[in-house]
Amino acid sequence: MTKNPHRAISYARSHHAEFLSELKEFLRFPSESSEPKRAADVGACAIWLARHLQKIGMRRVRLIRTQGHPLVYASWQQASRAPVLLIYGHYDVVPAAPLEQWETPPYRPTVRNQNLYARGACDDKGQLFCHVKALESVLRAHRALPLNVKCIFEGEEEIGSCHLLSFIEKHREVLRADVAVISDTKMLDARRPAISYAQRGGLRAELEVRGPGQELHSGTFGGAVLNPLQALCKLLAGFHDERGRINIPGFYDDVRNWSDEERSYMQQVGPADRRILDEAQVEHGWGEQGYTAYERTTIRPALTLNGISGGHAGKGVKGVVPAKATAKLSFRLVPDQDPQRIARIFREHIARACPSAVQCTLRLQAPTMPVLFERDHPALQAASIAYEKAFGSAPVFLRSGGSIPVAGAFQKVLNIPVVLMGFGLPDDRIHGPNEKMHLPNFYRGIETSIRYMNLISEAIHHGNISRPVEASEWVT
Amino acid sequence: MTKNPHRAISYARSHHAEFLSELKEFLRFPSESSEPKRAADVGACAIWLARHLQKIGMRRVRLIRTQGHPLVYASWQQASRAPVLLIYGHYDVVPAAPLEQWETPPYRPTVRNQNLYARGACDDKGQLFCHVKALESVLRAHRALPLNVKCIFEGEEEIGSCHLLSFIEKHREVLRADVAVISDTKMLDARRPAISYAQRGGLRAELEVRGPGQELHSGTFGGAVLNPLQALCKLLAGFHDERGRINIPGFYDDVRNWSDEERSYMQQVGPADRRILDEAQVEHGWGEQGYTAYERTTIRPALTLNGISGGHAGKGVKGVVPAKATAKLSFRLVPDQDPQRIARIFREHIARACPSAVQCTLRLQAPTMPVLFERDHPALQAASIAYEKAFGSAPVFLRSGGSIPVAGAFQKVLNIPVVLMGFGLPDDRIHGPNEKMHLPNFYRGIETSIRYMNLISEAIHHGNISRPVEASEWVT
Repeated sequence: MTKNPHRAISYARSHHAEFLSELKEFLRFPSESSEPKRAADVGACAIWLARHLQKIGMRRVRLIRTQGHPLVYASWQQASRAPVLLIYGHYDVVPAAPLEQWETPPYRPTVRNQNLYARGACDDKGQLFCHVKALESVLRAHRALPLNVKCIFEGEEEIGSCHLLSFIEKHREVLRADVAVISDTKMLDARRPAISYAQRGGLRAELEVRGPGQELHSGTFGGAVLNPLQALCKLLAGFHDERGRINIPGFYDDVRNWSDEERSYMQQVGPADRRILDEAQVEHGWGEQGYTAYERTTIRPALTLNGISGGHAGKGVKGVVPAKATAKLSFRLVPDQDPQRIARIFREHIARACPSAVQCTLRLQAPTMPVLFERDHPALQAASIAYEKAFGSAPVFLRSGGSIPVAGAFQKVLNIPVVLMGFGLPDDRIHGPNEKMHLPNFYRGIETSIRYMNLISEAIHHGNISRPVEASEWVT
Repeated sequence: MTKNPHRAISYARSHHAEFLSELKEFLRFPSESSEPKRAADVGACAIWLARHLQKIGMRRVRLIRTQGHPLVYASWQQASRAPVLLIYGHYDVVPAAPLEQWETPPYRPTVRNQNLYARGACDDKGQLFCHVKALESVLRAHRALPLNVKCIFEGEEEIGSCHLLSFIEKHREVLRADVAVISDTKMLDARRPAISYAQRGGLRAELEVRGPGQELHSGTFGGAVLNPLQALCKLLAGFHDERGRINIPGFYDDVRNWSDEERSYMQQVGPADRRILDEAQVEHGWGEQGYTAYERTTIRPALTLNGISGGHAGKGVKGVVPAKATAKLSFRLVPDQDPQRIARIFREHIARACPSAVQCTLRLQAPTMPVLFERDHPALQAASIAYEKAFGSAPVFLRSGGSIPVAGAFQKVLNIPVVLMGFGLPDDRIHGPNEKMHLPNFYRGIETSIRYMNLISEAIHHGNISRPVEASEWVT
């Protein structure tokens, strides 16, 4: 087959309407992985995706059942002895609540001003779909791909990728590849692509504080009983010191200090403070002293309070001392912090800090390693060329503040380079109300993926990337 | 008419079954005054109560409409030149949530082991009903009361009594009386009655902290933006110092210091620490150093965090920085604190303490004066005799930690003594799940009220209580 991408690109360009309509179908599933009541919707979304992969010409399509939500696997391996590209994405989404803040319903995808609004439009169904439509375009235009491809799409990224991670450990030969590509990050703006070469790790925590046997009258008992909600607030307030640093003994021990060269590279290519604060719609910044907002969200760790429940929080008033209170927190970790060690020192900290008049329970989950890739790796450089051709300008290399749990596993377990090729925009409001995908990015993302298949195939062919030994294909 | 109470008591004793069944009817209304969606139920409860007062022979029964929930007024004034007793109670309740903690549904009153379980069984429908059934018993037995009686029952006690308070100010002649009785407090145990001679005042607050324009992804922004929920926790944590004192400048300026005599009286009659903590189902106490639990809940002020909302508090996880967070708080105030002054210094404190990276909004409502009555007042001594005859033992004089907003208004605006004659028990779980009324207390409460009408009438007749000038009756 030819490695000229033009026929595939021309197929893609003549099918924008169909692609958009199919993406809307994909977005209609409320595949909220964290919500037990949405489990059937997550499953239905996986089946839809698997069928769709079959329809576009992918082979060995499998729905892999797990203890949680299913994995969707597909491959095309007709290019004998050609390298293998592993494409990862996730079809699950975070909950759409608060619904009243959406201008149009989150699961009724709507186009306004070249933007497609829906939960998951950017994170990650829209970006995942760029690759699916690229595969379709090449397969339809050439009846073959320029290299072998494996797709693994999961339904648990937003809750820690637990089952995919154990699948990778147990069945590493199934996903063995030469390079992996993940599109779940963002560009600088619609004309300035970006390749993410670093991701923060993570750890999720739920801290419960229990006090009286049941809710009490605040008149009768107020002043004589330690209020578990008040005790929780005190614990939470103590997690940061006056300088914006995380106040857990030993927390910063393994945080890597970066050279002046690296920090000045970041300064040069990364977003300015004002820009990050504008995106957040805040006037004033906040955080660890001595670092820019970009640094605070990438090379420095963070501890975020995601939510609290306890007492009477609804309308009206109720004079009570709550019986218990719970906080949800998430750590974002950086090289060389180990989430398991952070879990241990956080447990020790809570054990020390919990007042004796209440009981504290800490539940930890989803430990995720921070990851870091070499910017000058040929796999990342090939992505740079693909971007430049599709978007008309070369990408910058950025660090991301978020966590993609699987990226670290691909790097460590499969021992392959991982290219984080994002098509999101800073104002796409992922995880928030009115999430969107900028449609020109969706279409250029497809072309970037088409070009990348050719470029990475060539780079490996020319020996620029060393190949791992290929094992026999795993069969369900 | 005779002032011998035995015929009335005998009527009451032969009607226990009917009284219980009527109380159950009264308790079936979910008259949750704080819940806008329950407004119709509150109204229906008021109508039921008004009709019931008419049925038992009370005159001039009126449903007084307000901007909020209606007042129920009734009187019997056929005893010319006799003194007037004002009976107050409230037919509204606090919300029954969390429903799953109730053993039987809160609005399906159920008897188990001599206890009647329902929201409002003790606070305050059950106690209010003691007086209603006492009036019925005397009217049925004698066709007349030993003195004139006015009843005022409100539907907004749990939300600050705002409309009753302004009604008292505007129409003080309507409620003019010689003495007021309120049954909305508790005894020491089923055999040891108590008269409350002090109530804490109060002030309710809602503190909202706003940060980013909308919910943000905690990976993308975590560490660079001040989290409003975290800022709120820090503010809340700062409201108490290490010694359990409220950390608002000037807060203790007007708190009255009590003599050793008074504190030793309290020590002698009041509940021990262990007893209060057992009622709260906690092992360890907490609070302002140097005071017993009884003192901490009566002669010392308190600031209680009633609830927090903000971020993702439901099931599952969601890595967000919330856009805003809100806390509900209630102050309990003591002599000689003025709720209006506390409101002012609290506003000033929040203005100083609110970090510049977020916006703080404080909403204050329901300022309530603390009240204090002389233990040796003849109106309280008459109540003591009534209790002794009905319960078989003399009551102790206790302070209450809660607030009955109207008690202060009766004292200050109507200028009459107020007798807080409680029939609740410490384990009645008012405001909590499985609230109950101990039925022997309900029946003895009725007899106490029957006897009190005679005793107070005599005390006033003998000139023990000075009478205010009677004005003409107000007509709706």
